[in-house]
Amino acid sequence: MSTQEAHPALLIPGPIEFDDAVLQAMSHYSESHVGAQFVSVFGETLTMLRKLFQNTDPAAQPFVISGSGTLGWDQVAANLAEPGDDVLVLHTGYFADSFADCFETYGAKPTQLKAAIGDRPQLDEIKKALKEKKYKIITVTHVDTSTGVLSEIKGLSELVHSVSPDTLVVVDGVCSVGCEEIRFDDWGIDVVLTASQKAIGCPAGLSIVMASGRAIETFKNRKTRPASYFGSWKNWLPIMQNYEAQKASYFATPSPQLVRALHTSLTQILSSPLEERFARHRDVSKKIKDTVTSLGLKQLASKPENQANGMTAIYLPEGVAAPQILPNLLKKGVIFAGGLHKEIATKYVRFGHMGVSVTDPNRTDIDRALDALKEGLAEVGYKA
Amino acid sequence: MSTQEAHPALLIPGPIEFDDAVLQAMSHYSESHVGAQFVSVFGETLTMLRKLFQNTDPAAQPFVISGSGTLGWDQVAANLAEPGDDVLVLHTGYFADSFADCFETYGAKPTQLKAAIGDRPQLDEIKKALKEKKYKIITVTHVDTSTGVLSEIKGLSELVHSVSPDTLVVVDGVCSVGCEEIRFDDWGIDVVLTASQKAIGCPAGLSIVMASGRAIETFKNRKTRPASYFGSWKNWLPIMQNYEAQKASYFATPSPQLVRALHTSLTQILSSPLEERFARHRDVSKKIKDTVTSLGLKQLASKPENQANGMTAIYLPEGVAAPQILPNLLKKGVIFAGGLHKEIATKYVRFGHMGVSVTDPNRTDIDRALDALKEGLAEVGYKA
Repeated sequence: MSTQEAHPALLIPGPIEFDDAVLQAMSHYSESHVGAQFVSVFGETLTMLRKLFQNTDPAAQPFVISGSGTLGWDQVAANLAEPGDDVLVLHTGYFADSFADCFETYGAKPTQLKAAIGDRPQLDEIKKALKEKKYKIITVTHVDTSTGVLSEIKGLSELVHSVSPDTLVVVDGVCSVGCEEIRFDDWGIDVVLTASQKAIGCPAGLSIVMASGRAIETFKNRKTRPASYFGSWKNWLPIMQNYEAQKASYFATPSPQLVRALHTSLTQILSSPLEERFARHRDVSKKIKDTVTSLGLKQLASKPENQANGMTAIYLPEGVAAPQILPNLLKKGVIFAGGLHKEIATKYVRFGHMGVSVTDPNRTDIDRALDALKEGLAEVGYKA
Repeated sequence: MSTQEAHPALLIPGPIEFDDAVLQAMSHYSESHVGAQFVSVFGETLTMLRKLFQNTDPAAQPFVISGSGTLGWDQVAANLAEPGDDVLVLHTGYFADSFADCFETYGAKPTQLKAAIGDRPQLDEIKKALKEKKYKIITVTHVDTSTGVLSEIKGLSELVHSVSPDTLVVVDGVCSVGCEEIRFDDWGIDVVLTASQKAIGCPAGLSIVMASGRAIETFKNRKTRPASYFGSWKNWLPIMQNYEAQKASYFATPSPQLVRALHTSLTQILSSPLEERFARHRDVSKKIKDTVTSLGLKQLASKPENQANGMTAIYLPEGVAAPQILPNLLKKGVIFAGGLHKEIATKYVRFGHMGVSVTDPNRTDIDRALDALKEGLAEVGYKA
């Protein structure tokens, strides 16, 4: 059985389509998590993550832990916030509500700064909020998977460093790392958290976090113990440092197969300049968005500057519901996702365009998806 | 490349050797975590776990979450204990110390009842401890991976139900589920937590937990919110119930590839009576332990009744250290693990004998390992 036997193209905003070599790495024969071979692979993986994040400061630390992207929230809330700390959560959809809930679990006090659906909080509002209260942490969802809204990180981070320099800048990059530009050091980011199954192109099952030297210092200076056990950097920091130094180390058993798959996908990503990868995602996204517009459809993200480059959230025509059009697209060999934003879930669909579907010239996923969307809408009586 | 190209036999107490079909499932093409196909596979997997645990009470609930076995500790400590609750932790090695640390993280008060290395706390001591204080939870490591000590669950659970009937019985089955008999309902167990990469025979990356109806009720009657976010049953319980009812549901993205691999391994395990599987592990373990004894070597677990059936922890002869013998065994194509118990780490090795290495009649792993051990010891000058 080929790993890639005929199957519908998975074009949801994660998990995405994976390269053959990545899937092949998933079926690697069993090896010891503390054996020399695997230790070397894990160490290289951590070093490659620094390159992906454009990080050269050795005081920063990448973490790769079995879990989902959500575990990254716990890592931030349990290691960087302490009970009673104020946190400013920028809201661009579903995920800010959940991240805020995570902070509350660990005793921090989140304040959400909300934008209308399809928009993002503006810098002047954020500036005002930062001046009103001392926030230990500000969080931003780089790409909100529920709305396709892109936040602008560079300018935001500059603002935070200028107005509230002690505030840690935390980026939820679950749907952005690997397809949107992120310059971890240059932009002064303190944490990016992400998952393996989106633009990084490795099956789900890994929580991936990059923490700055300042974040690690903040962690080390905690007055209270980390509020999570499995997500505690007290447990994981020495392990990650040891693996990167090619030394075996044990806290909890990592997944050799998933780490090997991540190693494979990162090797592929880093074989070309990152700038080209981001440009390619921008170009394909523009083509998709132009087609969507030419069909007379609107996006949730209404302004060009806040539209993600790895996904598009598309309002369906009046009278067409997501549960009606999605099975139609599946018959044409294309899988889109339904809506996730509670208030309007059935009124829109989400089209993920990340990773090999975008970068591999041998794949026709994107063109087939656009054709399917056109035909599918025509079949339910919609005329552009 | 075959998934099983020539490689040394991995005979550590997890990860273990995996079956070809299981590894092949790891490279399944990408699919949506909320698509009908995967929802069906996940639902069946949960139902099969009930069979593995010999559970028929529908009020009980299996959980499968991306993470390592350690995440099971967080699930217990964050969902069943509340701040200030007393917990009795039976100590048979390394893992009780860590589980106690996990309880402390979430505000519970663990009391450890320790046994000498290679032994386990006795029922009369446990009875005395349970009478001295009201414990919300008692935990026992079914097989302590650091020492190879087996605890007896049936009698222990009977004792707890008789002496302290409100106390929840929590079994750390990371190194026992799939190779040691566990009758979840019959024995009155409240939680068994385990991981995928040991006797269940699926690559690492999944935390697997079985909770009784009483445990779920205890959780629902909490006065405080669950103390973990990623490990919260408030977040996961409806998801697991929905998947098992074949309904798509979302809290955090599961790993379709790992769940498919687990589905494959459980299908294989359940294709024969569980009694035969446990008997086979006991028979092979006896053969290994007899050989070890005939070589004049002693085990950490000194009494036959507290020796695990899925692993053997073997004291090396005087003057032979683990870092000396392990590379020697590797050259002969066999991987054993070094010691994990801090006080005596270099003085012993651990031999895992679980899963396909034991049950697949086409595999010669165990005989090759015993030969390698004999030859390896002879080469460093040891005579039985």
